Amino acid sequence: MSATEKMTPLHIHQVDIEPAGKRVMVAEGTNLLDAARQAGVEIVASCSGIGICGTCKVKLVSGRLSPLTPMEEDTLTKEEIAGGLRLACQAEPLSHVRLDVPQESLLHTQKMQFEGLEQSRSMDPAVIALDLNLQGPSMKDLRADITRVDDELLNRGYPHLRASLQQLHDTSKSLREGNWQARIVIRPEEGASYLVAILPSHSAMLGLAMDIGSTKVAMYLVDLTTGGTLKAFAVMNPQIAYGEDIISRISYANRGDAERLQLQSLLVNGINQAVAEQLRVLGMDASQIVDVVAVGNTAIHHFFCGLPVEQLGRAPYVPVVSHALRISANEIGLRAAPGTQVYLPPNIAGYVGADHVSALLASQAYFDQKAGLLVDIGTNTEISLVMGQRILSCSCASGPAFEGAHIQDGMRAAPGAIDRISFYDGKPVVFTIEEKPPVGICGSGILNSLAEMLKAGVLDRRGILIGQNSAGKASFTLVNAAHSGHGREIVITRKDVNEIQLAKAAIRGGMRTLQDIAGVADGEISAFIAAGAFGTHLDTGSAIRTGMYPDIPEERFHQVGNAAGVGAKQMLLSRAKRLEAEEIIRRVEYVELTVTPQFTPFYTEEMFFPET
Amino acid sequence: MSATEKMTPLHIHQVDIEPAGKRVMVAEGTNLLDAARQAGVEIVASCSGIGICGTCKVKLVSGRLSPLTPMEEDTLTKEEIAGGLRLACQAEPLSHVRLDVPQESLLHTQKMQFEGLEQSRSMDPAVIALDLNLQGPSMKDLRADITRVDDELLNRGYPHLRASLQQLHDTSKSLREGNWQARIVIRPEEGASYLVAILPSHSAMLGLAMDIGSTKVAMYLVDLTTGGTLKAFAVMNPQIAYGEDIISRISYANRGDAERLQLQSLLVNGINQAVAEQLRVLGMDASQIVDVVAVGNTAIHHFFCGLPVEQLGRAPYVPVVSHALRISANEIGLRAAPGTQVYLPPNIAGYVGADHVSALLASQAYFDQKAGLLVDIGTNTEISLVMGQRILSCSCASGPAFEGAHIQDGMRAAPGAIDRISFYDGKPVVFTIEEKPPVGICGSGILNSLAEMLKAGVLDRRGILIGQNSAGKASFTLVNAAHSGHGREIVITRKDVNEIQLAKAAIRGGMRTLQDIAGVADGEISAFIAAGAFGTHLDTGSAIRTGMYPDIPEERFHQVGNAAGVGAKQMLLSRAKRLEAEEIIRRVEYVELTVTPQFTPFYTEEMFFPET
Repeated sequence: MSATEKMTPLHIHQVDIEPAGKRVMVAEGTNLLDAARQAGVEIVASCSGIGICGTCKVKLVSGRLSPLTPMEEDTLTKEEIAGGLRLACQAEPLSHVRLDVPQESLLHTQKMQFEGLEQSRSMDPAVIALDLNLQGPSMKDLRADITRVDDELLNRGYPHLRASLQQLHDTSKSLREGNWQARIVIRPEEGASYLVAILPSHSAMLGLAMDIGSTKVAMYLVDLTTGGTLKAFAVMNPQIAYGEDIISRISYANRGDAERLQLQSLLVNGINQAVAEQLRVLGMDASQIVDVVAVGNTAIHHFFCGLPVEQLGRAPYVPVVSHALRISANEIGLRAAPGTQVYLPPNIAGYVGADHVSALLASQAYFDQKAGLLVDIGTNTEISLVMGQRILSCSCASGPAFEGAHIQDGMRAAPGAIDRISFYDGKPVVFTIEEKPPVGICGSGILNSLAEMLKAGVLDRRGILIGQNSAGKASFTLVNAAHSGHGREIVITRKDVNEIQLAKAAIRGGMRTLQDIAGVADGEISAFIAAGAFGTHLDTGSAIRTGMYPDIPEERFHQVGNAAGVGAKQMLLSRAKRLEAEEIIRRVEYVELTVTPQFTPFYTEEMFFPET
Repeated sequence: MSATEKMTPLHIHQVDIEPAGKRVMVAEGTNLLDAARQAGVEIVASCSGIGICGTCKVKLVSGRLSPLTPMEEDTLTKEEIAGGLRLACQAEPLSHVRLDVPQESLLHTQKMQFEGLEQSRSMDPAVIALDLNLQGPSMKDLRADITRVDDELLNRGYPHLRASLQQLHDTSKSLREGNWQARIVIRPEEGASYLVAILPSHSAMLGLAMDIGSTKVAMYLVDLTTGGTLKAFAVMNPQIAYGEDIISRISYANRGDAERLQLQSLLVNGINQAVAEQLRVLGMDASQIVDVVAVGNTAIHHFFCGLPVEQLGRAPYVPVVSHALRISANEIGLRAAPGTQVYLPPNIAGYVGADHVSALLASQAYFDQKAGLLVDIGTNTEISLVMGQRILSCSCASGPAFEGAHIQDGMRAAPGAIDRISFYDGKPVVFTIEEKPPVGICGSGILNSLAEMLKAGVLDRRGILIGQNSAGKASFTLVNAAHSGHGREIVITRKDVNEIQLAKAAIRGGMRTLQDIAGVADGEISAFIAAGAFGTHLDTGSAIRTGMYPDIPEERFHQVGNAAGVGAKQMLLSRAKRLEAEEIIRRVEYVELTVTPQFTPFYTEEMFFPET
């Protein structure tokens, strides 16, 4: 297969989405859920697109889709299947398709939220592809090979070409072997057009946006000409083998240069492999990746860049670099076209990273002149309070309880995890992921359990399980041994309750500290944006009931999913968005909670659950 | 010895030069000839500073100099030694010295020429050193390490720092290990300050200027703070092992990537070694080299850069690159500070290189609104005709005869080479380099011989040796076997004469073609600049007498030495000079002689020697 054949549009299908009237071109292999997202139509996908919740139903009006999956056969009724309904997360277009999205499948708030953002993105990428069709030299035209390219650039209004020697060598070879035709990709900057890639004429040019988390790396392969996402995918961060938490990885990296660089190459190789697999499916090549944007927390940012992390592990927790970085993909070891640059937006502080900046960028539409809160809950929870131009940011050590760690029967959100309970006749009834027999409790499950237990009166506001004696019971049984998936009791212990108290007190204490500095009362918060996986999946009511979130009207809450990833994609498609990210950082006042006097009293107060 | 001790000013001496009233600081090990040159005082050194001609006498007024060398004991009389006279090329300052330069030692024309240039050079190097003395982080000052550097740059009026990851890593390490003190060297460009080096505070920063010839590489280590040349030195171009001529090296390089890259690394390693030796003498290190300018002919330029040369070996002889290049020293393999950039000025054409552009730059002071000729004679002779803003340039294939090749008794300019002859009573008397017994004839010797033979009537204007028969003699004996250094006759053959006829016809034919295009008669040439080793050493009268040079008044000729090297140094010290070089190239009209109709008739006509 020749390089040109690889790029034929045969693998790209048009998807028309009604009644929204949106159209998008997607690569074969993209499911309808992602296609709809690219078109700015947000479909409900409560289970995050794993095919079990049945919330993402869409109706095929015309065209061909991939065959029904076992998930769909499980989830859809015979009548629904007969009526042409499919699960958007399971079905992939095999031709030009037209879909009808039922109102109940539209995530109204999310739709409003991101539709605007995705629509308003002006295509202004940092790189530009030019198809050259040059004349070769003759005795009448003795210009140097590269001068021919350069003159063409100037003709088209771009500055002079700048390239490495290897690139100059390759450009001369390619032009001479390709009869003076080629597609070049340049990155025009002040005073020079940097050569990024030399490709066969009309090759697609790809961008890679990444949100590198401590646990997972979310990636997007984007067509930089159309702006469409060709592939959205994720892999585990392979560094997890050296510690689930960042502190363990920092101490490993501190052992020496070899260990630090090992953590870097582990991560980079993991990304390279995952990208290579997706490219293979698309029939494309890493040499077509011509721009990269990567966001992550500050430590991950430093690991990815191979920078020293020692100083991140001890007070005053200062990063080596906090400004935006433009570095060579080659220096990092990321497989891409030879001149590809990786853009890393600025970090705010040692524990508030570029991923938070990216989330701030993607959430801008929510903020107005009033007060908005952006919260990303994790082992460290980053919080920003945005009031017009003013931004206050902090990080609080909320611990791993919401990831199921330090909780006796805690587990990750996986099949069989209790994610919701209800009390009937004073007895708890549990609901699990995939309705599998219960084997543990996930983060959102424990938060919901505590909220329900508070409501049911089996837990008091001090965190004491109401029981036989004044000291409280040692544990509350959710599932007895006979009904569990592993034959053991599933309980919430007093210690579990305390862990959650500590976590939610840190989070709410952080928010209140920022609010106190800015003089913002709870009622004045006009928008509360919960970003990130946990923030998106938890039950807002439970978070309010347990006092982790302020008690404000539910419509002010927005669960926006991977806002950091969306921001990364925006920066990949628009230089203006990069400048906005750099502008955001200049407006941020970072609040170091450990030296802010207000924090401790708020933290102590918030250990209690709210009055009913 | 610590890094700081290495840089102590103990090795630098002040040299005051009277009556010129010039002052210069030079490193120990610099001879007075070079010191005077740096101060803009050109002292005659007919033997190019090898200590044999005695023309560079200077008088020590005060201070200490290195001991008398055997060369000086040979060349100076006892009275001269007693009177404090020394040979500038042999003596080196050991303390602050004051010199008096006798009028007869001043090369008046050269002095006028380069003095102006060297004096007028405004120190405006592309790199700047900043000594940092920063505050470390605290809970009250959580700025990132690099932000501290960046803020300091902005305070001092420079744009934001840009660096590779390795440099960011090293900068953080150096600052933290060096108590937040360091000298950083930056290259400010549009929109960013590129990090070049991080050095101990107050380290000297060095620049390297190179004129890479096919045979020899001339190099200058320059102190970029003072502008003084610390070392001027040369090595053979090690590529010579793969062919004395460029065409042989091109065909070797064309065998494959390995051969091409072998020629590159040979050259670069040769340079690295030679520089390392000089740095050792200076007590300095390659990490202090923060800027490099390299000039050379187009093929050498491509070899140095590892670019393809195939297309230089066949019509239409087009280079891969002709514009100015700014490339990483690291990519080329040149030992220098990690962020060092190599500046390569533009090439004019396949056979008129950046060395000629550099010579044009250094010779600018000679040119006015009238017509000036710049000529650099070699196997290829580059010629430019400069008329105000207009520049016509060409290259002519003059062959290696002037390097002693293809001449029966030809040799390089070395001891025992005949470099001048005279006729006494109709018999030739020869003069040799170092007055050693004659063993051959060097290039300037053969030109002078032909001129004298024409004058003596033993050679006619067709190039026929006047002898027994109408066909002419086969050879003319300069030295008989009994008087030569090797016991064999030294002769000039008819074929030798023809070789010179071909060479000088090509050169003069090229000049006349340019003059014809521009409508410039010989008499209108107001300045004739002979650059390069051969042009500097040959006898102008002989060149006129043989018709290689136009017959214009002798004061219009200027033998300027290594103008390409001087131009390279100027570009090292001044960004404005680089822009001038790039401006020069835009004004050049390249004339390809092989397709210019005028050339052949001129060439044929110039095969004859002029009428007496």
